[in-house]
Amino acid sequence: MKDRRLLMIPGPVEFTPEVLQAMSLPTTSHLAANFAEVFGQALERLREVVRAPGGQPFVVAGSGTLAMEIAAANLIEPGDRALVVNTGFFSERFVSILERYGAEVTVLTPPVVGDTPPPEAVEEALKKGPFKLMTVTQVDTSTGVLTDVRTLALLGRKYETLVVVDGVCSVAGEELWMEEWDVDLTLTASQKAIGVPPGLAIVVAGARAMEAFRKRKTPVRSYYADWANWLPVMESYEARRPIYFGTPPVNLVWALNVSLGQMLAEGLENRWARHRHLSAAFKAGLTAIGLKLVPVSLQKAAHTLTTAYYPEGIDARLLGLILEAGVIVASGRHSALGDRYFRVGHMGAVTASDILATLGAIEWALARSGYPFDVGAGLAAAERVLAG
Amino acid sequence: MKDRRLLMIPGPVEFTPEVLQAMSLPTTSHLAANFAEVFGQALERLREVVRAPGGQPFVVAGSGTLAMEIAAANLIEPGDRALVVNTGFFSERFVSILERYGAEVTVLTPPVVGDTPPPEAVEEALKKGPFKLMTVTQVDTSTGVLTDVRTLALLGRKYETLVVVDGVCSVAGEELWMEEWDVDLTLTASQKAIGVPPGLAIVVAGARAMEAFRKRKTPVRSYYADWANWLPVMESYEARRPIYFGTPPVNLVWALNVSLGQMLAEGLENRWARHRHLSAAFKAGLTAIGLKLVPVSLQKAAHTLTTAYYPEGIDARLLGLILEAGVIVASGRHSALGDRYFRVGHMGAVTASDILATLGAIEWALARSGYPFDVGAGLAAAERVLAG
Repeated sequence: MKDRRLLMIPGPVEFTPEVLQAMSLPTTSHLAANFAEVFGQALERLREVVRAPGGQPFVVAGSGTLAMEIAAANLIEPGDRALVVNTGFFSERFVSILERYGAEVTVLTPPVVGDTPPPEAVEEALKKGPFKLMTVTQVDTSTGVLTDVRTLALLGRKYETLVVVDGVCSVAGEELWMEEWDVDLTLTASQKAIGVPPGLAIVVAGARAMEAFRKRKTPVRSYYADWANWLPVMESYEARRPIYFGTPPVNLVWALNVSLGQMLAEGLENRWARHRHLSAAFKAGLTAIGLKLVPVSLQKAAHTLTTAYYPEGIDARLLGLILEAGVIVASGRHSALGDRYFRVGHMGAVTASDILATLGAIEWALARSGYPFDVGAGLAAAERVLAG
Repeated sequence: MKDRRLLMIPGPVEFTPEVLQAMSLPTTSHLAANFAEVFGQALERLREVVRAPGGQPFVVAGSGTLAMEIAAANLIEPGDRALVVNTGFFSERFVSILERYGAEVTVLTPPVVGDTPPPEAVEEALKKGPFKLMTVTQVDTSTGVLTDVRTLALLGRKYETLVVVDGVCSVAGEELWMEEWDVDLTLTASQKAIGVPPGLAIVVAGARAMEAFRKRKTPVRSYYADWANWLPVMESYEARRPIYFGTPPVNLVWALNVSLGQMLAEGLENRWARHRHLSAAFKAGLTAIGLKLVPVSLQKAAHTLTTAYYPEGIDARLLGLILEAGVIVASGRHSALGDRYFRVGHMGAVTASDILATLGAIEWALARSGYPFDVGAGLAAAERVLAG
């Protein structure tokens, strides 16, 4: 499928050999005792990863978009008001999904793309509530913007609004303390910092979210997303007495448990720190050779990916050259920015070697493109951070 | 995950080494050129497998239940009437899903579990229409009943009702000519006769189904199931110019293409015949030692699985002994039959060796349970069919 080229897009990413190996194990029954043990353990470990000892995890065959739909379908009833803190394409997608389920959505847009709506504006909006829920995209994969979940979640509590965190591009890569910060629902997908090939929608719901679900007056509109169908299944796997609703994606769940085990062995704090460290090195490298980041400040920049504008005179053809140099990076994904920027994912099992290889490929491609810069300066700047 | 035990449940089943190997290939970008080639080819091959040269295939991360939801969500608008030809648990699930999308559902139930509603009763019901659509479960995994899709689809055309075939436990194992028989939508999942680990919802929609979708007056209620989101994506992969909606499950799609390639190399007619042959051998073996099948006749029995009642004096503890003998089979899944029967899947890459091994394990378990029978008679009867 892929030769030795490095996959440095914001998901799917490079996976560990143990995770890939788990994918190819001869599939057993979804009701087998050893699979129940593995699925149950994965659910328990997910609670640890998002720091939600009292949370209810759901792991379902699907994508991150399905995880967003699961949140909307179970928490929204027609006419409910929702507030979307917009930091990019995926926040905007949440608007569409919430509206599909009958929500009246208020969208808070930042002054410029690359920024976040200020907390004061969020509080201002919440005052005009009540809102049933607020969505916060911890890292928007389209812009590379990091949102301060902790501060916004505090406001959510203050105004009694459920706080839903889209953690597709952040969970297991960015710091998150779901219960301590009073987050009510965290959603993610397998192929990003979780470190498993694409195919899993992952949701952890807190007590208030589950209570809001139980108090619904109308049935959930989607069948496949309905917690009424999945809750008994997740509880049964945790009890190691599996029951059936839909056939779980056995190999992906097995791989998930392997990855979660590796993650907890590394330690979440260590993992977050590794992401910060490698991100700092990569960003130092890019800026040293004159590239400008999309986020308005380093404080608002994700540690799981980097988004940067092409320098003057360079366009999206650069990606073809970077590929030629052996690294796969991603084009832009935000209508307002068009084809003026590119995205590099550095999460999950990412290493310092990956960071240097990617910077090297970018320098090589820029040099080939006639961009005037001090060749090697990016790598040197990154190495100073790595060795620092 | 699984030692050398045989997995003989009605999905997931035993997969080929090539399919399992594809699962563990280092994941590439969902937008990479070689992945677009593979996904595009898989979509083309799906058309061949269901014999629908003009069909529109959809392959989405999910389960068979999601495939059912995709059919209901895109074809049903609130108030539409639907007719469900009920042959078991999964037909009944379709009732729930259709109702979730606002359909008024009429259910046709057979005289006894193990039978199918007679075509005359279906025509009688259709006369009292019009119905927007009719669902037919080609093989209901719960009862092992095979429904005559061809005859019912003819009736569907006669009464201008869309014919939706749940082929989760039949596609690539049972004969199906989607266009020739005038079927409007076929849905399935990866882990059964398609021969790929669980995690893919698969739908092929015919021209009339796509037209009904385009003529909708109301938006599709589910976002993740909405063809408006997926149609451009599927078209783009077939054109080898991939665009993004949700990240496709790259490794599963790669494995799907491998399995579809193996299937077409075998030849669909040969594959259907192999399923009929191995099924006949297995059923001959079971009946030779006195077991009674759940379907009322061999004509109404699936070729992808066998469902049989435990003989007098034997109960579900038999499954533990069969497992001890090295084969995993499945318990019952139909409320009316309770724990009185078990299910054995024999589809996909199933071989004569698997059939004999499974019969051997069942005979061993029955002998251990004190069931009086001529030990070896089941194997001998099966071998006479296999060698015949």
